[in-house]
Amino acid sequence: MPVGTAGAMKGISHGELLSLGADILLCNTYHLHLHPGEDIIAEAGGLHQFIDWDKPILTDSGGFQIFSLSNLRSIDDERVIFRSHIDGSEHVLTPERAVEIQHKLGSDIILCLDHCPPSTASRSEVLEATDRSLKWAKRCKREHGRILSQSKRGGDDHSPLLFCVIQGGLERDLREKCSQEMIAMGFDGYAIGGLAVGESQEEMYGVLDALCPLLPADRPRYLMGVGVIEQLRACVAKGIDMFDCVLPMRLARHSKVLLSDGTSLDIDKAMYRTDFQPIDADSPSALSRTHSRAYLHHLMKTKERYGETIACMQNLGVTLQAMRSIRESVES
Amino acid sequence: MPVGTAGAMKGISHGELLSLGADILLCNTYHLHLHPGEDIIAEAGGLHQFIDWDKPILTDSGGFQIFSLSNLRSIDDERVIFRSHIDGSEHVLTPERAVEIQHKLGSDIILCLDHCPPSTASRSEVLEATDRSLKWAKRCKREHGRILSQSKRGGDDHSPLLFCVIQGGLERDLREKCSQEMIAMGFDGYAIGGLAVGESQEEMYGVLDALCPLLPADRPRYLMGVGVIEQLRACVAKGIDMFDCVLPMRLARHSKVLLSDGTSLDIDKAMYRTDFQPIDADSPSALSRTHSRAYLHHLMKTKERYGETIACMQNLGVTLQAMRSIRESVES
Repeated sequence: MPVGTAGAMKGISHGELLSLGADILLCNTYHLHLHPGEDIIAEAGGLHQFIDWDKPILTDSGGFQIFSLSNLRSIDDERVIFRSHIDGSEHVLTPERAVEIQHKLGSDIILCLDHCPPSTASRSEVLEATDRSLKWAKRCKREHGRILSQSKRGGDDHSPLLFCVIQGGLERDLREKCSQEMIAMGFDGYAIGGLAVGESQEEMYGVLDALCPLLPADRPRYLMGVGVIEQLRACVAKGIDMFDCVLPMRLARHSKVLLSDGTSLDIDKAMYRTDFQPIDADSPSALSRTHSRAYLHHLMKTKERYGETIACMQNLGVTLQAMRSIRESVES
Repeated sequence: MPVGTAGAMKGISHGELLSLGADILLCNTYHLHLHPGEDIIAEAGGLHQFIDWDKPILTDSGGFQIFSLSNLRSIDDERVIFRSHIDGSEHVLTPERAVEIQHKLGSDIILCLDHCPPSTASRSEVLEATDRSLKWAKRCKREHGRILSQSKRGGDDHSPLLFCVIQGGLERDLREKCSQEMIAMGFDGYAIGGLAVGESQEEMYGVLDALCPLLPADRPRYLMGVGVIEQLRACVAKGIDMFDCVLPMRLARHSKVLLSDGTSLDIDKAMYRTDFQPIDADSPSALSRTHSRAYLHHLMKTKERYGETIACMQNLGVTLQAMRSIRESVES
């Protein structure tokens, strides 16, 4: 899932995004809540209408940004209080509110509010965050059911799905306990949070090896924050279905260009000054089939925004293509 | 002419630019000379090939940026020495070199090096700059002829055109003298420089009223740096054929949105927070027909790059559409 933080990709139009084969967009509840606010989006007819995107939208709960981006004021089992990273204004979020906001946004896949501890957290901190995530998931499920039963969307084919988020850090017993209790509550899908936050690849794979066999086979599993193509392959093999990541865009901003053959270019290196071959002759992005490496090198060196657009399209295109090829392998 | 400074528009792809009906692109010799340099562009097969743009390209001489952007070290009738605004490196430009660089770029319309005095210049400074521009134009014409006679492009239908630049500030007698001497030398087209640099609209119109009747009717006249739509209309009526301007993009960056009915919006104003009508239902830009004012307001307030893209497309599209409508009026 490409990440369209506040309802837009960085420098890529929706049309360009569709041309790369994107068929779902992730938007950040935290950002949309701060601006323009869920009420304005509801008034517009929902997020699909507001941003003019008619494919599915998944929204996160806002929790991750509260813990990583905002000025956290206080947290307990009842609620979290934080200050906006934009204007310092104070906001209160409860599990119920997180679900209500996402319903107002008109999201297709709603995520439960969770407490994501940092990778450096102690076992007791991870334990507390895991217990809290379980309590919050229960309240989210109840609130989701309440809203669905009141809403005209309830029961029809367009009812939004609710995913829980499994926490537990690198503590396998906590991951297992969290999974079992989440499964007992029953969700439409199971997100795995608290990974790809600084731990080693081996540690991440270890958690997935312990976790995936426990998850129901007929519900999607979504590993949050992973975008390295080799990791996508490995994690699908372990049983993961969905991913989101800003990595393709972050790499593009740092002049790293992923190629469709699996290699990559540091396009700001002097060796590309006179490399007039296409950026990637087999690219899923038309811009990379026609524009040369020398031109992209020039645009990145002169900080022309078009360079970032070309590189974002390329990296996102190659990542989406890799997922398509993985899906085809799974099918065959 | 949209301005693609270093061979790219700000945040607009070539395809999007073509969709707005652009049929010529202006590129800045100063920027391209500093990076990647004309030799690399020549090695790529010229600027059209390098940036993948197969419609005409006009390049300015670099003079305007030397006087406005760089750290000017010294100037005399022989040459100008300046330091790059990027890395402080020292560069020497002569009229011959300016023409040679533009030939290497493979430009379709080449401009003579001129000396553009600031709007605050005294009469004696304007006189000196005008005399120098005349001397430089003569040398440019000689060098252009020399290169054409040596080159395989010489004499065929694809030979680049050479435009002179008429200076003279607001001094009508100097403008007239400059025009007469330029016409006596004979150029493919006549650019008018040193206007739209801070003088009043009345002063600018006064110069054009004096100047335009003197210029040959069968050669294009190009007023440099004008982009206000009402001024385009007035100046075509006075006899101008071509314009270039970064104004549509600059307005877009400042949240000013031009509409196809001639009005405009300050899209960052709070009144647009819940204005769900299309940005401009009759826009030449498809993005403005589908996206709402509320969405653009949100994108500009959250500094999402897609907002600037939408606004740039809108302002450039409306400006190009205005020129098309002026051309149709002239024809009918």
